[in-house]
Amino acid sequence: MGLFTRDIQSFDDLFVHQLQDIYYAEHQITKALPKMIDKATAPELKQGFETHLRETEGQIDRLERVFAILGLEIKGTTCPAIEGIIKEANEVAGEIADQEVLDAALVAAAQAVEHYEISRYGTLIAWSRLLGRDDVAQLLDETLAEEKATDEKLNQISVDRINRRAAAVQPA
Amino acid sequence: MGLFTRDIQSFDDLFVHQLQDIYYAEHQITKALPKMIDKATAPELKQGFETHLRETEGQIDRLERVFAILGLEIKGTTCPAIEGIIKEANEVAGEIADQEVLDAALVAAAQAVEHYEISRYGTLIAWSRLLGRDDVAQLLDETLAEEKATDEKLNQISVDRINRRAAAVQPA
Repeated sequence: MGLFTRDIQSFDDLFVHQLQDIYYAEHQITKALPKMIDKATAPELKQGFETHLRETEGQIDRLERVFAILGLEIKGTTCPAIEGIIKEANEVAGEIADQEVLDAALVAAAQAVEHYEISRYGTLIAWSRLLGRDDVAQLLDETLAEEKATDEKLNQISVDRINRRAAAVQPA
Repeated sequence: MGLFTRDIQSFDDLFVHQLQDIYYAEHQITKALPKMIDKATAPELKQGFETHLRETEGQIDRLERVFAILGLEIKGTTCPAIEGIIKEANEVAGEIADQEVLDAALVAAAQAVEHYEISRYGTLIAWSRLLGRDDVAQLLDETLAEEKATDEKLNQISVDRINRRAAAVQPA
């Protein structure tokens, strides 16, 4: 941040800021996912998180391609939103005694993360189209499709089994 | 938080925690929206935020009805996720010099808030159905429909005009 000036002077600057924000967020997600894999019990949830971790690494590569295409330095900027979402996930998980209930909470936490990303990539795609960068929009669209598919997959596994198992738990 | 016990023992407890979380989040949103109304320049954006403020107040009433139906104390619990999302919105807004660029950033911030809510209400609806509370699910469904409509409305006004005006701004 400039001491007397404001850093975002143009729409281009805003776009770059948003790109750095999601780049930072994706890195935080790659740090959070291994902990979620450890905490998860249901095999389909563990496996879903493992798949999404590999996907997230691919999404980081894609963002680095976007930085390169636009001739920008590859750089993140602190994203308080993802930090808050992950903090909340950890706090809730720390309060849960039962494995089945924890699985249901982990799905909810992962879906909050997915929705944050869906919102951010949606914005970045609209902005890159407007800036005449359909090449960038197309790359980010691939990521957006993955995030939506992950959210849908989480819906499916939780409705099919995880929530039911959690609801069957009797209080200690 | 218990000192030696964990507070969430059952799926019911998890549901109540999530309800308290979104109740707190909605209150934070009613505090954030007046500031966003002040900062917005485009009349359709100002008006959109004003409408959503009234809607949010209705959503709080609806949550209070849910607490009452379930015989629960009306109570919020700190939600680090919404705090992070709002903190990020304020930080970005504070970096922007130009009104048109600020409008585009405000739309993006509001959409991140909407997506957080869409994720949380989606989870609460699935969980209340599973707990056999279709009455609660139906109430929360009304809110979810409003959140999705707000997100769609923000898409529409930003694509139609706000992003275009922001993109036309020349750096100072």
